[in-house]
Amino acid sequence: MSFASRLRGAFEAHGQLCVGIDPHEHLLDQWGLDASAAGAREFGLRVVDACAGRVGIVKPQVSFFERHGSAGFAALEAVLAAARAAGLLVIADAKRGDIGTTMEAYARAWLTPGSALEADALTVSPYLGVGSLRDTFELAQEHGKGVFVLAATSNPEGAALQHAVSGGARTVARAVADEVSAWNRARTGEQLGNIGLVVGATIDRRAAGLPEALTPPAPILAPGFGAQGARLTELATLFGADSPQVIASESRGVLGAGPDGITRAIGEKKKELGVIGG
Amino acid sequence: MSFASRLRGAFEAHGQLCVGIDPHEHLLDQWGLDASAAGAREFGLRVVDACAGRVGIVKPQVSFFERHGSAGFAALEAVLAAARAAGLLVIADAKRGDIGTTMEAYARAWLTPGSALEADALTVSPYLGVGSLRDTFELAQEHGKGVFVLAATSNPEGAALQHAVSGGARTVARAVADEVSAWNRARTGEQLGNIGLVVGATIDRRAAGLPEALTPPAPILAPGFGAQGARLTELATLFGADSPQVIASESRGVLGAGPDGITRAIGEKKKELGVIGG
Repeated sequence: MSFASRLRGAFEAHGQLCVGIDPHEHLLDQWGLDASAAGAREFGLRVVDACAGRVGIVKPQVSFFERHGSAGFAALEAVLAAARAAGLLVIADAKRGDIGTTMEAYARAWLTPGSALEADALTVSPYLGVGSLRDTFELAQEHGKGVFVLAATSNPEGAALQHAVSGGARTVARAVADEVSAWNRARTGEQLGNIGLVVGATIDRRAAGLPEALTPPAPILAPGFGAQGARLTELATLFGADSPQVIASESRGVLGAGPDGITRAIGEKKKELGVIGG
Repeated sequence: MSFASRLRGAFEAHGQLCVGIDPHEHLLDQWGLDASAAGAREFGLRVVDACAGRVGIVKPQVSFFERHGSAGFAALEAVLAAARAAGLLVIADAKRGDIGTTMEAYARAWLTPGSALEADALTVSPYLGVGSLRDTFELAQEHGKGVFVLAATSNPEGAALQHAVSGGARTVARAVADEVSAWNRARTGEQLGNIGLVVGATIDRRAAGLPEALTPPAPILAPGFGAQGARLTELATLFGADSPQVIASESRGVLGAGPDGITRAIGEKKKELGVIGG
């Protein structure tokens, strides 16, 4: 089954909320856990437990596991396996980007069925050109996986590069969006594509040069809700025609509720999204 | 001691050659090793042995270890520790890039003294803005570490983005170079900076909009020698006034000589670089 189909299924079952799994030191402390690989593992497993049956999608932030070296990656493997066993769709937020066989090794690490770090989708960075990511798109398509390419991000420092103009006409963010759209169209026609974008919820879509709507439709991973300033209730206003394809990612707003409050926080976030979520 | 000072020391002792540690499947096969974490570990340790006392700098390619999950990272930890114990300067080629506390976790993973993945320098990606990397620069500076920011790369797919024009004047690659130069100047004046760039050896410097020379001088990590087409004998022509700061990275041209030929290959590469190397 394609990633796009599984994403549709997750939306239908649980709506568009995605919970970040960010074992940041402050959160580990709040949850009464050590700032260690063991703490990150326990944190991740508890978040998976809280999400199972309530949320369709989780997004482990790889850096907070990588912080602890190989032990952190072993913890991440346990969390990825538990999440997938619980039927959650897992987006590994790793923002990898490289060329040739080097990029291929990253793609295989995260998107090959049966690999230790297997996830359902991977975030990637296009600084080396979207062209350098094509083999990753192929590999994802072949294995029923998804890829999210960084396009326009919510942090203020990102605009100078992402709004730079390529070939006298398009912004960098727009060129990334267009190349992803062209790839999806060639592969799956006008259906929902398997290759998506990362678009911050708080960005100025016009300044970034993004189109009114992605055609064909593509999944949009949207961080920036909650602590970063965007409200889930505004999703339809923020994303317009793209709204049905948006994965609304919340981390601190859910995780900060602590181990006793997380299921309640998930319920509240789902209610905020309710207008368009399933 | 600052990264820049240690880099100068490595150049003086052994010249400007950097050997990539790329446990790619094909190379593992050629070396008679398994395409596994154990194979990658053995490969890395043998390359470190061959480099010790002959070369000043090595560059492990993280993706080929990440391919094997946590076991691959454990192998990488062993290789990093062996390389640093042998007095080699180690550049972890990971091309990480993220924002805020997420980027901080990557920086801490690779650049904190005593951490499992400690290296001497880390490659990073500026798609989220050079501003998102400033805390990483600070952390590196504080711990005597280095950072190499992707600027202009040798792969043909990179040009569209890296040559895009920001604010009506500068290319993206130039803006990255200027921001790094400004940071170095503010920290270490006109001395060699601790924050460097990744600039492919085969790029068209003018098309990329890069300056004739970086001022203040900054380390330049230059992949693209050997298999990718640039010749070590041409380093001075390719990099002009920047040449003395260039780390000339070779992977396949050295590693492809196999376990019996690697020390001879290193000697030959050093001879090619001899005109400007130490």
